[in-house]
Amino acid sequence: MLHFDCDYMEGAHPEILRRFIETNLEQTAGYGNDPYTERACQAVRQACGVPDARVFFLVGGTQTNATVIDGLLAHHQGVLAAESGHINVHEAGAIEASGHKVLTLPSHQGKVDPEELDAYINDFYRDDTYQHMVAPGMLYISHPTEYGTVYSRSELERLSDICHRANIPLYIDGARMGYALAAEGSDVTLTDVARLSDVFYIGGTKVGALFGEAVVVTNPTLLPHFFSLIKQHGALLAKGRLLGIQFETLFTDGLYFQLGRHAVRLALRLREAFRAKGYEVAMESPTNQQFFRLPNEVIDRLKQYATFEYWGPRGEHSSMVRFVTSWATREEDIEQLIALL
Amino acid sequence: MLHFDCDYMEGAHPEILRRFIETNLEQTAGYGNDPYTERACQAVRQACGVPDARVFFLVGGTQTNATVIDGLLAHHQGVLAAESGHINVHEAGAIEASGHKVLTLPSHQGKVDPEELDAYINDFYRDDTYQHMVAPGMLYISHPTEYGTVYSRSELERLSDICHRANIPLYIDGARMGYALAAEGSDVTLTDVARLSDVFYIGGTKVGALFGEAVVVTNPTLLPHFFSLIKQHGALLAKGRLLGIQFETLFTDGLYFQLGRHAVRLALRLREAFRAKGYEVAMESPTNQQFFRLPNEVIDRLKQYATFEYWGPRGEHSSMVRFVTSWATREEDIEQLIALL
Amino acid sequence: MLHFDCDYMEGAHPEILRRFIETNLEQTAGYGNDPYTERACQAVRQACGVPDARVFFLVGGTQTNATVIDGLLAHHQGVLAAESGHINVHEAGAIEASGHKVLTLPSHQGKVDPEELDAYINDFYRDDTYQHMVAPGMLYISHPTEYGTVYSRSELERLSDICHRANIPLYIDGARMGYALAAEGSDVTLTDVARLSDVFYIGGTKVGALFGEAVVVTNPTLLPHFFSLIKQHGALLAKGRLLGIQFETLFTDGLYFQLGRHAVRLALRLREAFRAKGYEVAMESPTNQQFFRLPNEVIDRLKQYATFEYWGPRGEHSSMVRFVTSWATREEDIEQLIALL
Amino acid sequence: MLHFDCDYMEGAHPEILRRFIETNLEQTAGYGNDPYTERACQAVRQACGVPDARVFFLVGGTQTNATVIDGLLAHHQGVLAAESGHINVHEAGAIEASGHKVLTLPSHQGKVDPEELDAYINDFYRDDTYQHMVAPGMLYISHPTEYGTVYSRSELERLSDICHRANIPLYIDGARMGYALAAEGSDVTLTDVARLSDVFYIGGTKVGALFGEAVVVTNPTLLPHFFSLIKQHGALLAKGRLLGIQFETLFTDGLYFQLGRHAVRLALRLREAFRAKGYEVAMESPTNQQFFRLPNEVIDRLKQYATFEYWGPRGEHSSMVRFVTSWATREEDIEQLIALL
Repeated sequence: MLHFDCDYMEGAHPEILRRFIETNLEQTAGYGNDPYTERACQAVRQACGVPDARVFFLVGGTQTNATVIDGLLAHHQGVLAAESGHINVHEAGAIEASGHKVLTLPSHQGKVDPEELDAYINDFYRDDTYQHMVAPGMLYISHPTEYGTVYSRSELERLSDICHRANIPLYIDGARMGYALAAEGSDVTLTDVARLSDVFYIGGTKVGALFGEAVVVTNPTLLPHFFSLIKQHGALLAKGRLLGIQFETLFTDGLYFQLGRHAVRLALRLREAFRAKGYEVAMESPTNQQFFRLPNEVIDRLKQYATFEYWGPRGEHSSMVRFVTSWATREEDIEQLIALL
Repeated sequence: MLHFDCDYMEGAHPEILRRFIETNLEQTAGYGNDPYTERACQAVRQACGVPDARVFFLVGGTQTNATVIDGLLAHHQGVLAAESGHINVHEAGAIEASGHKVLTLPSHQGKVDPEELDAYINDFYRDDTYQHMVAPGMLYISHPTEYGTVYSRSELERLSDICHRANIPLYIDGARMGYALAAEGSDVTLTDVARLSDVFYIGGTKVGALFGEAVVVTNPTLLPHFFSLIKQHGALLAKGRLLGIQFETLFTDGLYFQLGRHAVRLALRLREAFRAKGYEVAMESPTNQQFFRLPNEVIDRLKQYATFEYWGPRGEHSSMVRFVTSWATREEDIEQLIALL
Repeated sequence: MLHFDCDYMEGAHPEILRRFIETNLEQTAGYGNDPYTERACQAVRQACGVPDARVFFLVGGTQTNATVIDGLLAHHQGVLAAESGHINVHEAGAIEASGHKVLTLPSHQGKVDPEELDAYINDFYRDDTYQHMVAPGMLYISHPTEYGTVYSRSELERLSDICHRANIPLYIDGARMGYALAAEGSDVTLTDVARLSDVFYIGGTKVGALFGEAVVVTNPTLLPHFFSLIKQHGALLAKGRLLGIQFETLFTDGLYFQLGRHAVRLALRLREAFRAKGYEVAMESPTNQQFFRLPNEVIDRLKQYATFEYWGPRGEHSSMVRFVTSWATREEDIEQLIALL
Repeated sequence: MLHFDCDYMEGAHPEILRRFIETNLEQTAGYGNDPYTERACQAVRQACGVPDARVFFLVGGTQTNATVIDGLLAHHQGVLAAESGHINVHEAGAIEASGHKVLTLPSHQGKVDPEELDAYINDFYRDDTYQHMVAPGMLYISHPTEYGTVYSRSELERLSDICHRANIPLYIDGARMGYALAAEGSDVTLTDVARLSDVFYIGGTKVGALFGEAVVVTNPTLLPHFFSLIKQHGALLAKGRLLGIQFETLFTDGLYFQLGRHAVRLALRLREAFRAKGYEVAMESPTNQQFFRLPNEVIDRLKQYATFEYWGPRGEHSSMVRFVTSWATREEDIEQLIALL
C-alpha cells in the first residue's frame, strides 16, 4: 500500500537520529540551556538573516500557535485569521481556551486578502460600539496555507504594511515552511518571511524532524517573558537539546531547504501526471499538498492501492481528494502511483 | 566534571533509539492511531493490572498535569495539593492558566497527611459560606514526591478512601514513578497505584525515555473527551508512535522497573557514603533524589568536581543540597564522587 | 429632542422604585437569601409554567450569557449561535475569555435556520477529524433577536428537537423577552419558551427594571453548582433582594407583559407611519426595534429632532437606521416623531 | 430581632433613592456615557486629590477585583495577597478563573507585613528556577482588611515603596473604604490612598449605595483598554448612570465620609460595652467590624435577640463572633444590644 495521507507519517531524517545516538549519553542542562540549542538558535538566526532575533524551540504546531498568540494578544484583542486557518478549525479551540477570539476573514484558497484585512480594521474602528467588540490584535497567516497555496512577496509586503500601520503584529505559521520556500514560482525567501513578520515559526515536525518548531521573534518588543509562557503552556521540553540537535542538523548545509525541494518536486510530478490524465487540479498549490477532483469510481479504484485524504463531494459523481508528499516520499512510490492512474 | 543535577541530563535508553532507527521510515497514521501506540497501551495496562483502563501518551509532565487536572475539575472546584507540590510551585501557573485554583495542604517532606486532608474537606463543608469558596475537587499527590519521599500502601489507601468518600478523584503525578517503585522499603506496587487512584501517570522523561508520560485512567467515568482536551492543550504529538515505541520498549521485559532499580541503588550507595562521612541526611528519601546538609566549605570544594543543586542555607555555615541519580548514572561516577568526599 | 436610541435610556417602572423605598431600611440576608427573592422565584416559575425550575437573578445580559454558557459547556465544546448573535459580536469576547469558542451559523435576520443547524451537527460528526475540532455543545438563540425578529412556535419546536436529539441544551437569550411575548402575530408564549428550552433568561434591564435578568433552568440536570459559578463570574449581587423586589414587581399582576405590549404597540405605530410615508421597512420586526431604509437627507433632517441608531449605508443615497421604543416610551413622543416625518 | 451580620443588609441612603426617583424618566445614553457619571467621576477625583486619575464604576466587589487584577497582570505573573485576603478565600476562584495565581503572604490580622513582602520578592528573583514559577506581578491589600484592621500611613508608604522599586503596582481593595477613613486613630486619608496606590476602589455597596464600586486608576500607564475589559468581564452596567447618580450623591457634601463615621462610632461604642462587661476583644479593629471571644453560653443567649456571624471555636467553651455596624445602623439598636449583655 502507498501512503499519501499527510507529511508526518515517517520518523526523522536519518542524520537527526544519527546525531541523537552520537550525543545520547552526554549530560547537559535541561530546558534548552545547552550548547546544541544555542548553536541551533544561531543557525536559525543566520538562515533567516536576523542576527538579533530571539529563537525558541517548541514541540508541536498547535502548542506553538496557542503559546505565541496568547503572548501577543492583550485581553481585549483577538487574532485575525482566514476562516480556513488551522487555529480556527483544527486546534480543538486552543486559542479560545487561552481566552482569545479568532476573528475570521474570508479564505481565498487558504489565503487572506490584504484589502479585506485593511477594510476589516478600518470598519472596526469606524463602528461606534467598537469598545464592546473584540479588537483585531494581530494577524495570523499560514505560509504555505492549509491548501498548499503560498503568498507572493508583494502580498506579504502589503499584509505586513497594513498590520504595522494598524500597530498589530503579523505572525506566520510555518508548519510547512520548508515546502513554501521550495514552492514552484515563489519569490518569497526565508529572509523575506523574517523581515516582513514580527513572529513566525519554522516547522520541523513536517519537514524532516521527529518533532519540533522553531519560533523566531524578530520584533524585539514582543513576547518579553516568553520562556515562562512556554512553561505555563506545557510546551517546554525537559531535554531541550533534542530540539537543538534537530534544528542544528536541519540548518546545517542547507538540509532543511533540500528536504523541502524534494517533496515539492515529487508533488509537482504527481500534479502533472493527474493533469495529463485529464483530471481536474482543484487548488492552485505549488507545494507538497495537491488537491484533485476525481470521479468517485477512480477514487474507489485508487483506494485499493494507496491511502490519501478525502475532502468531500464535488458534484454528484466526483469528490475532492488530497495527496501529500514529504521529505521522505520515495521517487518510486510516486511513479507507482502514476502507473496506477 | 561529574553531574548530579537532575534525572534528565542524558538522552534515552539505547534500546529506544535502536527502535526509532528500526522503524524510522515506516509510514503510520498520526496522533497515536498506530500499532506501536496500541501495543504500548496494552503493555501499560498489563503492567498496572487494569485491563480496562484507558491509556494516553503525552509529551511532558507540566502539560500532563495541566491537561488532566483541567479535565477532572468542574468550574467551582480546585485541586488539593501539598504546598510543595510541583503544580503549586514549578509549573509557571499552568493550573491557574486553565482557570483552576491550587488549594494547598501542609507539606510533610513533600507528602500530604491523610488526616489533614480529611479535616480540610470536612471543615470546608461546615463553613456557611462554602459556596463562595473554591470547593476541593480532587487530590493531587506526587509519588515519589519532589523531595524523593514515597507514600506507604496504607497511606495511599487512606488517601484514596478519603477522596472516594468525598466523591473526588485521586490523581497521582508519577513523573518519577520508576524510582518510587524501586524505593527502599516501599510496599507500593504499580498495581497498588492503579487500584487506589482514579488517574495517574507513569513518567518516561526522567526514567529512560527521550520524553513522554503515560496517563492511565482507571476510573471509567472520568475524562470522557480526553483526546480533544489533549489536542486543545497542545499536548497531542503528531507522530504519536514515537511515544508508543518508547513505552512499548520500557514496558517490555521489565525495562522500566530495572532502570528505576539502577538509579535507586546508586542513590542509596551515595547516601550511605555521605552518612558514613558524618554528613547529615536532610530528607528521608528512599529514591533517586538525595538531600544532604553540608558545610559550605565542603560544598565549595565539591563544586570543583561535580554539579548538583543548591537548595538554600541551613544555619550559618551549612546548606542543603540535592544529588540526583538516574537510569543513566554510571557506577564509576558514584564511586568517583564518593572518593572526592 | 426625542430619543429612540435603545430601550435602556430611562430608569425603572415607578412601582419598582416605590417598592425600593418601601423596603429600604428592612434588614435581610445577602446574596438572594431573602424572602423577596424567594417570592420572585416563585412568581417567575408560575408565569413560566415550570413549578420545578430553578431560578437565579443576575445583574446584566453579557454577564448572564457568559455565566450560563460557561456552566453549560464542557471543555471540548463550543456554543452554536447565529453570526449576528450578541455573544458573537457585542460582548467583548466574554465567551472566549471563559475559554469557549462561538461556532457560527448563518444569520437570517438574526435567526438560526433549523435545517442549517441540523446539517452543521451532522456534518461535524461525519468529519474524520472531528476530535480535533470544537464540538457543538449547545445552541444559543436570542428571542427576539438583535434585529427584533422572533421565532415561531414551530421553529422553536424544531430547534429544540434537533438539540435534544443531539443531546445538547438549547439556551435562549431573552434580554428583550417581554417584547417577543408581545410581538405582533407571534404564537410563542412564555410557557412555550420554558417548555422548549433547557435554560433561558427573562430580561429585566430592557423591560421595566433598573437592571436584572432572571435565569430559568428547566432542565434539572444542568448547572448543578450555579450559585458558585455566579459568584466566580462576579455576577452575584450582595443585596440580592434588589433583584427579587424588581422581579416580584414585574411578575405581579402581569406588569412585565403589559410593559412589553406598550412598547410593541408604539413601535408598530411607528412602522405604520414610516411605511405610509413610503419608506422602506428594512427588517420584518414585529417587536420594539424597527429598522428603516431612509434617504440620507431624511436622516439628516430627523437628526435635528431625534436620536436613533445609524446602521450603515444601504446604497449610495440611503442608509439603514434603527428606532427603538421601550416600556417607557411616551405616546406623544411617537406622535411628535411621526409628525416630523 | 437585631441584626449585626454584615454591612449590606439594608438598601441605600435615602438621598440616593430620592435622586433615582427625581431622574427616573430622564433619557440618557447607556454604559456610563451620561452627565451623572461624568460628574461623579469628577467628584471622586476631587475627593481623592488626583485630578488626572481615570475613574470607572462597576457593580460589585468580586467583579471589580477580578477585572482590575486581570487587567494589571501579565500572563506570567500572579497577585500577591495576604492569605486571608478576600480574593484568596471568598471570591469562588474568580482570580484563577481569569488565569492568574494568588501568591499568598502571611496574614497579620488581615494585613501584609512590608518586610515579608520585600523578602518574598527578593527571594523570588534569587531562585535559579524563577522562570518556572509565577512571578509576583502586583500587590493586593484590603483597607480596611477582612478583619476590620487598617494600615497606618507609614505602612502604606513602605508597601508602596517596595512595590514601586520592584516595578509592580499596588492595588487597594476598598470595599469598606469609608470605614477605614473613619477608623479610630488612623492617619490615612483618601488622598494618601490615592497617592500611594496605583489603582484602588472605593466601595459603595457597603457604605451607603444600593450597589457600586468606584475604581480609581492613578497610574496613567495602567489599564489602557479598561472599558472593554469591564465589558468582557460582564461588569458593565447598561444604565451606567445609576452608578453615577449614587457616587455623585455620596461624594456631595461629604456624605460618604459621614456615613463611615456613623458606623465606626457605633462599632466602637459596642466594643467599649463588650470590653466593659469583661469580654475579650479578639481583633484590634478600629472600624465597623468588631470581633469578640465570648463564652458559648453568652452566644446562645444573645442569639435569641440578635443575629451576628460565628467565626469558629476558640478554646473549649468560647468562640469568636463578629458584629458589624453600617451606615444604616440605628443608635437604639446598639443600645438595646448593649442592654442585653
